[in-house]
Amino acid sequence: MGSIFGKNIRVSIFGESHGAAIGCAIDGFPAGLAVDFAALAAFLARRAPGATAGSTPRREADAPEFLSGIANGRTTGTPIAAIIRNSDHHSGDYAAIAATPRPGHADLAQRMRYGDSCDLRGGGHASGRLTAPLCIAGGLALQWLAQRGISIAARIDAIHGHPIAGERDASGLDAAARAEIEAARAAGDSVGGTIACEVKGVPPGVGSPIFDGLENRIAAAVFGIPAVKGIEFGNGFEAATLLGSENNDAFALDGEKVVTATNRHGGILGGISSGMPITFRVAIKPTPSIAKAQRTVDVSKHEECEIKVPGRHDACIVPRAVPVVEAAAAIAVMDGVVVRCR
Amino acid sequence: MGSIFGKNIRVSIFGESHGAAIGCAIDGFPAGLAVDFAALAAFLARRAPGATAGSTPRREADAPEFLSGIANGRTTGTPIAAIIRNSDHHSGDYAAIAATPRPGHADLAQRMRYGDSCDLRGGGHASGRLTAPLCIAGGLALQWLAQRGISIAARIDAIHGHPIAGERDASGLDAAARAEIEAARAAGDSVGGTIACEVKGVPPGVGSPIFDGLENRIAAAVFGIPAVKGIEFGNGFEAATLLGSENNDAFALDGEKVVTATNRHGGILGGISSGMPITFRVAIKPTPSIAKAQRTVDVSKHEECEIKVPGRHDACIVPRAVPVVEAAAAIAVMDGVVVRCR
Amino acid sequence: MGSIFGKNIRVSIFGESHGAAIGCAIDGFPAGLAVDFAALAAFLARRAPGATAGSTPRREADAPEFLSGIANGRTTGTPIAAIIRNSDHHSGDYAAIAATPRPGHADLAQRMRYGDSCDLRGGGHASGRLTAPLCIAGGLALQWLAQRGISIAARIDAIHGHPIAGERDASGLDAAARAEIEAARAAGDSVGGTIACEVKGVPPGVGSPIFDGLENRIAAAVFGIPAVKGIEFGNGFEAATLLGSENNDAFALDGEKVVTATNRHGGILGGISSGMPITFRVAIKPTPSIAKAQRTVDVSKHEECEIKVPGRHDACIVPRAVPVVEAAAAIAVMDGVVVRCR
Amino acid sequence: MGSIFGKNIRVSIFGESHGAAIGCAIDGFPAGLAVDFAALAAFLARRAPGATAGSTPRREADAPEFLSGIANGRTTGTPIAAIIRNSDHHSGDYAAIAATPRPGHADLAQRMRYGDSCDLRGGGHASGRLTAPLCIAGGLALQWLAQRGISIAARIDAIHGHPIAGERDASGLDAAARAEIEAARAAGDSVGGTIACEVKGVPPGVGSPIFDGLENRIAAAVFGIPAVKGIEFGNGFEAATLLGSENNDAFALDGEKVVTATNRHGGILGGISSGMPITFRVAIKPTPSIAKAQRTVDVSKHEECEIKVPGRHDACIVPRAVPVVEAAAAIAVMDGVVVRCR
Repeated sequence: MGSIFGKNIRVSIFGESHGAAIGCAIDGFPAGLAVDFAALAAFLARRAPGATAGSTPRREADAPEFLSGIANGRTTGTPIAAIIRNSDHHSGDYAAIAATPRPGHADLAQRMRYGDSCDLRGGGHASGRLTAPLCIAGGLALQWLAQRGISIAARIDAIHGHPIAGERDASGLDAAARAEIEAARAAGDSVGGTIACEVKGVPPGVGSPIFDGLENRIAAAVFGIPAVKGIEFGNGFEAATLLGSENNDAFALDGEKVVTATNRHGGILGGISSGMPITFRVAIKPTPSIAKAQRTVDVSKHEECEIKVPGRHDACIVPRAVPVVEAAAAIAVMDGVVVRCR
Repeated sequence: MGSIFGKNIRVSIFGESHGAAIGCAIDGFPAGLAVDFAALAAFLARRAPGATAGSTPRREADAPEFLSGIANGRTTGTPIAAIIRNSDHHSGDYAAIAATPRPGHADLAQRMRYGDSCDLRGGGHASGRLTAPLCIAGGLALQWLAQRGISIAARIDAIHGHPIAGERDASGLDAAARAEIEAARAAGDSVGGTIACEVKGVPPGVGSPIFDGLENRIAAAVFGIPAVKGIEFGNGFEAATLLGSENNDAFALDGEKVVTATNRHGGILGGISSGMPITFRVAIKPTPSIAKAQRTVDVSKHEECEIKVPGRHDACIVPRAVPVVEAAAAIAVMDGVVVRCR
Repeated sequence: MGSIFGKNIRVSIFGESHGAAIGCAIDGFPAGLAVDFAALAAFLARRAPGATAGSTPRREADAPEFLSGIANGRTTGTPIAAIIRNSDHHSGDYAAIAATPRPGHADLAQRMRYGDSCDLRGGGHASGRLTAPLCIAGGLALQWLAQRGISIAARIDAIHGHPIAGERDASGLDAAARAEIEAARAAGDSVGGTIACEVKGVPPGVGSPIFDGLENRIAAAVFGIPAVKGIEFGNGFEAATLLGSENNDAFALDGEKVVTATNRHGGILGGISSGMPITFRVAIKPTPSIAKAQRTVDVSKHEECEIKVPGRHDACIVPRAVPVVEAAAAIAVMDGVVVRCR
Repeated sequence: MGSIFGKNIRVSIFGESHGAAIGCAIDGFPAGLAVDFAALAAFLARRAPGATAGSTPRREADAPEFLSGIANGRTTGTPIAAIIRNSDHHSGDYAAIAATPRPGHADLAQRMRYGDSCDLRGGGHASGRLTAPLCIAGGLALQWLAQRGISIAARIDAIHGHPIAGERDASGLDAAARAEIEAARAAGDSVGGTIACEVKGVPPGVGSPIFDGLENRIAAAVFGIPAVKGIEFGNGFEAATLLGSENNDAFALDGEKVVTATNRHGGILGGISSGMPITFRVAIKPTPSIAKAQRTVDVSKHEECEIKVPGRHDACIVPRAVPVVEAAAAIAVMDGVVVRCR
């Protein structure tokens, strides 16, 4: 299978970078949500290319057309489908991909998976462009969650290893991070970074031990974002360096509620929400598409060669990935929460 | 739901720490595997308490009884069920759990999830003991994979922040790590660590982009292990600190095969196996059960109080978690590989 | 959930009768099928309104637009999405539905299920129009199956209780059946019928005992067709009237192959294909939309009243349902067969 | 896959007729049900061999042992596992099965499916014995449903084509039916029959159009019972013989409730419960195991031959199938209802 997420809501994502359209079908979304289309557009705009520092100049309206599941501005309870037309192709740029796979990309892996019939143009179904329908689904999930007092906010944690310490611009970058990105772009290179995400308002008792915990769900959704290479919850890898007495979060009273005095566990214990904010951090690798010459193989000639990936690239995908992380978290959290709310 | 993993094989895990038995049912396991029961017992022994440095002295045979799905020593193709009886309880040790949740444990979260009827003794269904049936399923998966040339090996990467650098003992620890663990035990405390895992022999082309990639699957399985707080593939979080030109793995020829000259990507591109070894690293938090006094809440009296977790504890769970990581990886990889092999 | 079928391929159907578009997303369809678009159009035309005796004059192109998953005329292996625009509405015809549910329709049931936000126009998501995307998915499945020597053919068995005995026209009706339908239409009424379906070429050994047998799968798919009220495999309900010695099919040799001398079992034993043709029969109720006055309730006034369902109706849906039964069978059979073929 | 049912509860059934044990694992069963073990035993006794007219004298305690998921007499919310030991084998009786498949049985189909490693003794995993764990799961579901005002009752409709018209004995048979069965037994033969089932109290609005309707679910579960060859809802195949004006059920008022004046639709419209009783009828074929000589093939010698199935057989399985139909219906209905109740 491949492109369907969820047990209680089912988000099915389809499309290739240079096909007719990309989109999503969402099964099980509850009836009655009054969709705020302006808010959804604003959410999608955060992911759109060109909007943030370091992003590709490819311009796309990326305005979703809703085909079903919404009537009179409200979700109907039956499947929601939305599509975005692909219009601004320069497929010629990618003509060489078929023969010379780009390092760090899924070109060759897809060919091994699907054979010669697969559509590799622009990265095909593995393209970052497919995060647009993910954001449609996630944007709707965020609105549904917001009505239940659940909010999700991600932000850039570090770029190229440097934590964001200064004042943030609209892209969530400080001056040092912008400089890192510009230096990479000038060198025909790219940089990665980390994103921190916080989910507030999830009631205690969501998720299950073993395979259906919130960590399993969120991780499974977040690894659906191309370029994600790691995820950690709470203090994550740091927990592995601490004593139990340092790492455990004491329980305490906050009026009627039982809380934890600290939140190293990141809001999830035994796969189940504890009522504390859910926190996780994600590692985003540097964009593999770079202008610099790289070694690869011409598979048609079966000989090693050099490639300079042509076309328009993000020198840093991290700012655009921030809403995508929120979207992935939203569908994962909604999938867990929705069974308690219907 | 909760305790079922997989799309093509389905591993269903059941049981509570202090119930009658724990076990697993495995649906979709192909017919014809000649089970090596001695090898399986040896695999399970690596997880068993008492076998490794730092582990609890609780003694369990942990010998699985197979109830179905194996006849004349071979898998039949119909569901495999196996159970392990629980026999060595000291439930009295845990009598206080109901009223005073243990910091770092899922006691309170489970109560919020399931209400008063849940069985919290020994951690109930969220107990680390449930990794025993996970290892039964994983041990069978490892044997099935081995027959297809796929091997999985995990080992301790670091304990309490210190990489294993010296000679390893049978538990995979060096002298410094053993000292760390003993110091923690002596102090009534515990330590965590990291585990590195490598999967060799997966053919290229396994997995799919977006939600059904090998990273999604492996992460979803590995977070089924209690105490796991993070996972990274390839160079993981380090990738976020590199330039694209540093992080991309060049393609190269190795005779007839296209390989990558380096393996920072960890054998998975776009969710699909590249043919290179799959590598990932897992963070294990320190065991939350410690003898030291901790602050918690007596929920029956609704007042804060102190707890010293009684009973037998692992001062370090990491050595015992090594085969569990292998088991989780095995069922995740088998779930992806099996559709190509039937 | 609701509108997703399959374990190995996943057919997700979306849309409402009077929304912007209806369509399907198909996940897991193997790469490399050269799609015969003309054959697909011909298949869809068999279901189209106006094409057959007794059908509504509503005219629709019903030409699917493929958005993804097909490139250069071949399936790519990544999700296939296709849509059909809705264009020929007379929503006004259905204005009264909201207040006065039509007998035999799902109007009231949908309102109980989804609340006031649901889109009931034209039957909404429960409309027979949704069988068009089912036929897109089924039509592709039929082509994939045909390449593996598997064919599926349904035909009308009886109309209004009268078996088709005479020469069949293009709609599969004989003179008596046409007369039955015309008489019903003239009276502002409708008739139902039965459809027999045969699947040839399924290799022995497809399906599993208990819950994943071919009977379970086919039934689960076929009840996705509105108006289906029953299904029986092989001799079905007649088997319940026979002796075991009359009903059992003797095994016999046909050259190298083991066959059954008769095929009362309908090609499935223990949920598994036997290698004999799979046969089943489906009951289709008379179209509930009739011009005759019927008793219903005005739910806004909470009083009983009379309704004459306005708009265009099929006096007999059975001829149009024939390809839909083939489509449902095709996706069910492909779902079982595909794991052996990848 | 094969032996797992459900989306919201997941019933996994394992075991072979002559293996160590049969059983089930139930994931997602809500916490807090006080299990009435005596009622469950009484329910299982209705299925047990020897209890009803026409059944095999094989004696089994069939008392389930619960391994997990129930503590202090209540469901805990975590997976329920239960097993029944197999003790009363005469495997020798079935020694010939491997070479000479029994007509009407899944022996040969299973061999084609699983190869030589499958366990065919007593029918293996396809044996009717596997309905015992189905009844454990169904019996628990019935109790859970009963607490929500939902009751399920099946009864014999006809035996060997003769409707039950006279006074019923404890097996649900009248004098004519008993005579039919005894005549078949005396002749070394068997008879089938039909079972009618009614589900009362399901609130309106359960289920979804297209693939997740109650009809799809119930049919998918009921075809998990060996020997079921057909299912029809409401008036089923009879609907295909009526006019729309005869078949439609008028809506009417019953105090505050909207009901239907008749119930030909069988309580389900568009896959969704209407609030009326859900009614369906199931065809059960005559037991294929008969003493009479039958033609089959000796696959080891590749020649046709004769077989007289040795061992103990039910001359009529229908009385024992009645609670099994209730069990299958219960898990299907609970799977649809449970999302509204948690």
